Amino acid sequence: MKKLIAGIIQQKSAATPDANREKIAGAVTLAIKQGARLVVLQELHNTPYFCQNENAENFDFAEPVPGPSTNFFSDLAKDLGVVLVTSLFEKRAPGVYHNTAVVLENDGQIAGKYRKMHIPDDPGYYEKYYFTPGDLGFKPIETSIGKLGVLVCWDQWYPEAARLMALAGADLLIYPTAIGWEPTDGQDEKDHQLEAWTTIQRSHAIANGIPVISANRVGFEENPEKKGEGIDFWGGSFLADGQGKILARAGNHEEETVVAAIDLEQSEKLRRTWPFFRDRRIDAYKDLTKRFRD
Amino acid sequence: MKKLIAGIIQQKSAATPDANREKIAGAVTLAIKQGARLVVLQELHNTPYFCQNENAENFDFAEPVPGPSTNFFSDLAKDLGVVLVTSLFEKRAPGVYHNTAVVLENDGQIAGKYRKMHIPDDPGYYEKYYFTPGDLGFKPIETSIGKLGVLVCWDQWYPEAARLMALAGADLLIYPTAIGWEPTDGQDEKDHQLEAWTTIQRSHAIANGIPVISANRVGFEENPEKKGEGIDFWGGSFLADGQGKILARAGNHEEETVVAAIDLEQSEKLRRTWPFFRDRRIDAYKDLTKRFRD
Repeated sequence: MKKLIAGIIQQKSAATPDANREKIAGAVTLAIKQGARLVVLQELHNTPYFCQNENAENFDFAEPVPGPSTNFFSDLAKDLGVVLVTSLFEKRAPGVYHNTAVVLENDGQIAGKYRKMHIPDDPGYYEKYYFTPGDLGFKPIETSIGKLGVLVCWDQWYPEAARLMALAGADLLIYPTAIGWEPTDGQDEKDHQLEAWTTIQRSHAIANGIPVISANRVGFEENPEKKGEGIDFWGGSFLADGQGKILARAGNHEEETVVAAIDLEQSEKLRRTWPFFRDRRIDAYKDLTKRFRD
Repeated sequence: MKKLIAGIIQQKSAATPDANREKIAGAVTLAIKQGARLVVLQELHNTPYFCQNENAENFDFAEPVPGPSTNFFSDLAKDLGVVLVTSLFEKRAPGVYHNTAVVLENDGQIAGKYRKMHIPDDPGYYEKYYFTPGDLGFKPIETSIGKLGVLVCWDQWYPEAARLMALAGADLLIYPTAIGWEPTDGQDEKDHQLEAWTTIQRSHAIANGIPVISANRVGFEENPEKKGEGIDFWGGSFLADGQGKILARAGNHEEETVVAAIDLEQSEKLRRTWPFFRDRRIDAYKDLTKRFRD
């Protein structure tokens, strides 16, 4: 098989962006030693998940792209010869900030970026305050190892996003993410949420016949303003093949670097066996652009 | 909770349409005794799965809607006071046949019909020969127990179909289906296919926050023209809630009547917790009506 070894870095937030970057560099080096040529980082890996509150000072975490972080990860990608999927808080202009995934090519060049399109806003996840909705659309990023369908967190609940990436030729779907439990929820509800999150992402693999890589944050982060119970990020980062089969998975409580081999020839086989793309009823899909069909 | 008890009839094909209808009537009666107010039958339940070959004589299985079968199931629905989801080979005009789900109201009236939109065509499943693509679109059928998002088999692989039903107000997604294993496939491949099939349907529940009911055929049907190895229909019919949690499930080898209580108030709660519909990027979805974005 034509295989790609890919890695996921699942981490707890360190005290400062510098400390986070250094910790990531160590973990990526570990993934490389296991053969990884692609490494995916979790959402907003440089900082704590600052969206637990609406606080204008948090905009100080933002930085331009290119900027200090892309320089750091560019050097890392070049030094280790790896394609890196990073997730940054992008300062585009005063008052225009994005939640942006930046892909670094293995020669250190910026291969491309994706600005998070679906922005959530729920108690503890006040993202609409921080992130201007993305305006780059759903376009895979071309790299030396394939076309990467990079999406971010909340996007993972939208079959539309995965489909548009696949229709544009994505070889893989990739989700840097930061999702966790409310500590006050019961264990049953926690289990159902984790299982729903895993299932919807595996389903994008199945519907489109391409692998999925999802890198999630882990560990408890308290609410710095004591306005909530904090978030217990559930980890569970995984790689799944184009049939939705889990290839490797991290646990739910600790930092882990997970590596697995992905078969890049599987998609062609899958799409011949179950040729979903052939039979789409594009003549009957136009209402997908409606808010509601009432 | 405001609950709806729903049932699934998973059966092996009997020798004749009359024998199938009688067997179904017995099973529906059993479901009613367990409190069911909605019963879902499997795809093309009156006949063997005749699409294993392209044979013009099989068009003799088709019948008008309304016609003898809707009369039979209308009487059954009225007698038992149950909403019935049936799946018929519809003869609409010479040369125009459909794979049509007909919903009978609990007073015996035809509540509505859905003509299968996505038509497969693969070795052993020569459906494009028999079934003209549906022209009624993705519209839920209004009944006394709610709006039913009835889809059929191959439709289950398409997130677009489930989404369009949900956007049109469907309270439930319902899939009469007939899918099975090739006897020559290895056990691993069989397991992956069954799991992929379950996962994609559970994901439609999750993406849309509504329950899913899937009724599948069971048992081995040989290829009557000896042109293939036959199909081992894998059963596994199930009901899942709006988080994709399996409420009840049939096995993979035997006839079963499965009944479960569905919480009709769960959707409102789920869509408040994870409000996916609020954040859809309808401004960026128009390419979903393209064959491929190249």
